[in-house]
Amino acid sequence: MFDRIQTPAVLVDIDVAKRNIERFQTYADSHGLKVRPHIKTHKLPAIAEMQLDAGAVGITCQKVSEAEAMVAGSGRLNDVLITYNILGDDKLHALVALAGKVKLAVVADNMTVIDGLSAAFAAAGATLNVFVECNTGADRCGVGTTEEAAALAVRIHAAPGLRFAGLMTYPPVGGAAKVQAFMTEAKALIEARGIAVPAISSGGTPDMMKAHLAPIATEFRPGTYVYNDRSLVARDVASWDDCALTVLATVVSVPASNRAIIDAGSKTLTSDLLGLVGHGHVLGRPDISIDQLSEEHGRLRCQSDINLTVGQRIRIVPNHACVVTNMVDGVYVYGKDKAPELWPVPARGKIV
Amino acid sequence: MFDRIQTPAVLVDIDVAKRNIERFQTYADSHGLKVRPHIKTHKLPAIAEMQLDAGAVGITCQKVSEAEAMVAGSGRLNDVLITYNILGDDKLHALVALAGKVKLAVVADNMTVIDGLSAAFAAAGATLNVFVECNTGADRCGVGTTEEAAALAVRIHAAPGLRFAGLMTYPPVGGAAKVQAFMTEAKALIEARGIAVPAISSGGTPDMMKAHLAPIATEFRPGTYVYNDRSLVARDVASWDDCALTVLATVVSVPASNRAIIDAGSKTLTSDLLGLVGHGHVLGRPDISIDQLSEEHGRLRCQSDINLTVGQRIRIVPNHACVVTNMVDGVYVYGKDKAPELWPVPARGKIV
Repeated sequence: MFDRIQTPAVLVDIDVAKRNIERFQTYADSHGLKVRPHIKTHKLPAIAEMQLDAGAVGITCQKVSEAEAMVAGSGRLNDVLITYNILGDDKLHALVALAGKVKLAVVADNMTVIDGLSAAFAAAGATLNVFVECNTGADRCGVGTTEEAAALAVRIHAAPGLRFAGLMTYPPVGGAAKVQAFMTEAKALIEARGIAVPAISSGGTPDMMKAHLAPIATEFRPGTYVYNDRSLVARDVASWDDCALTVLATVVSVPASNRAIIDAGSKTLTSDLLGLVGHGHVLGRPDISIDQLSEEHGRLRCQSDINLTVGQRIRIVPNHACVVTNMVDGVYVYGKDKAPELWPVPARGKIV
Repeated sequence: MFDRIQTPAVLVDIDVAKRNIERFQTYADSHGLKVRPHIKTHKLPAIAEMQLDAGAVGITCQKVSEAEAMVAGSGRLNDVLITYNILGDDKLHALVALAGKVKLAVVADNMTVIDGLSAAFAAAGATLNVFVECNTGADRCGVGTTEEAAALAVRIHAAPGLRFAGLMTYPPVGGAAKVQAFMTEAKALIEARGIAVPAISSGGTPDMMKAHLAPIATEFRPGTYVYNDRSLVARDVASWDDCALTVLATVVSVPASNRAIIDAGSKTLTSDLLGLVGHGHVLGRPDISIDQLSEEHGRLRCQSDINLTVGQRIRIVPNHACVVTNMVDGVYVYGKDKAPELWPVPARGKIV
C-alpha cells in the first residue's frame, strides 16, 4: 500500500483518526461537555472539519498564525480559541483581522496582555472574547490564585473592546480535582463581583476520559487524541491500534547483528521524549528499541539478532504525534477505502 | 535592531558566521586539509557560497532532496558529497539527474546499496563516485572492520557505473586516534588489492581543531562550526561571542517571581539536549535555566527573582543550531553593516 511513497514519510490512517474523534465526542456528549479540539496535533483543516462534523463546537489553536492558516484552509472553521497570551502590534493587528472573520477568543494571565488586547480592539471598534488562564498545577502560564483570576476577570470586564469569556486551564495529568476546586472558587469570586462566567475550559488528552471528574468545566480541549502516540500507549489510554499516525522508514544499514539504521532521525521523529526511554515504537517489533537519533538517522537496537535487512521498511509510532506533523510539508492520508494521498499541512511551522 | 521582527524568530549574525568559517579554513589550510562543510547547519545556498569563497572544495549534504535544494539555489555549488546510504528507485533517479549537474559522490556501507547505485548509474550510462563509510566508534552507519571496508572498495571498483572515491567516517568526539588507525589499515588493505584510495573524509565540529591528530584524512566535514551553539560552548570549543545563531523570543507571562514563560518552545528550540541539562542559554542571563519546553512555550526558572517583564525580549543560544534552522521557513540575517533581512531556508524539511 505504501510502496510508492518515498521514506521517511508520515502516514495517517483516517479511519482510526475518525474513530478516535468519535470516541471522545460520545464520551463528552454523555457528560454534557463541549469539545473544542486543539488542532496542534494534525494542523489540517480537513481533519478539523471532521471534528466539527462529529460535534465539536469549534477549534483551539496556540498561535495567531496557526489560527490564520486553519481559517484560510476551510470556510467552516468559524469559532476559534487561541490559548495564548498575545502581545505585539503585528499580532494584535492580525487578531483584529481574524476577529472580523470568525468568532474569536484568546486567553490572558496578566494585565499587560489585557491592556494590549483592549487598546487594539477598542481602536478597531471591535470586541474580543478573553478567558483568564489559570494555573492548576502545570506551572506554565496562568494565574496562581483565584483572587488573581477574579482581579483579571474584573479588568477584562471593564476593558473597552473586550468581553470576559470565562476561565481556562491546561492542567497537569491527574489534575482534575485541582481544576474542580480552583475553578469552583474562582467562579464564585467572579460571580460575587456581579460578573457572569460563561465558560470554563480544560484540556489534555491523557485525562480526557476523566473529564467528568471536574464537572465545573463546560468545554474540553483534547489535541493528541485524534492520532494518539507512544506516550499515550505508555499511559494506558490508547492501544497501538488506536495510533493513527505512524512514520514509514527504510532500513539503510545493518552494520551489526543487533543494530540497524533507518532513514528517519530527529528531523522526522523529533527528540521529544515525554518521559519515555527511546524514540518510538516499531510496529510488530516490541523487541526493538530506537536508542539514538541524529538528524537523519535512527538507530535500532535489539538484545538478540535484529533480523532486519537493508531496504526493508518499518513503521514507527512516535513518542509524540503533534510535533511530528510539524516536521513535514505533507502527510500521507489513507484508509480502508482510500489509497494514500499526500495532504499538505497548512499550519506547519506557524510559530508566530 | 530586531524591534520589527515578530517572535519567535531565528537570527543569524553573518559577520560571526564568516569569522567562524574563516577560522577553520585557516586551520585546515595550515594542515593541508580540504574543507567540505556540511550544509545541514545553515541549509542556505548563500552561506555555502561563503564557505566556498573561503576555500572549501565543495559541500556535504545528508539527503538527496537536501542536495537538490542546495544545487537549485546556487549555480556555484558544483561539488557535492551526500554522506548517506541511498536506496529506492525514486532517490536513485534523482541521484542520476543530480550527477548530470554537479560532481557528485555518495557513501555506502553495504552491498545492497552498492548494487542499487551501480544498476541505476550503469543503466543511465553515467558514473558515480562512491566512498565506503567506516565506523570509527560512533556506532551509527559504517563497516566495522577494515576487511569489510576493503571488500566494499573492491565491489565498488568492479561495479559498472561506479568509481571508488575513498573512505569516509563520522567519528565520535575524541575519535581521532581511532580514525587514524582504522583508515591507515583500511587504506593499506585496499591499496594491496591494487586500488587507489583517492580521498579520506572525516568530520565533526567538536574535534575539528584536532583534525591534524588524524593526518591520514584528506578532507574534513564540519557542520555546526558555522553557527556554533550551546553544546559547543559546553565543550569549550566556542564562546558565546562565536554563536552566530540565536533565537529571539518574547516574555509572555511572569506567573511567579522566579518563573517566566516565553513564546519559543520545542517548535523553535527543539527538544535536542545533546547531553545538556536545559534547553538553551539566555544571553546575558547565566542565572536563568530553560527547564521545560512545550510546543509553543518555554519555561524560564531562576533561583532568585527572575527580573523579567511581560513583553520584554530575550535572545537564546539553542542547544543545537542545526535542528533549529529546520524549524523555520526563514531566518533573519544581520550584521555590522546589514539590517536584518529575512532569508528563506531552501533546504529546510528535506528529509527524503
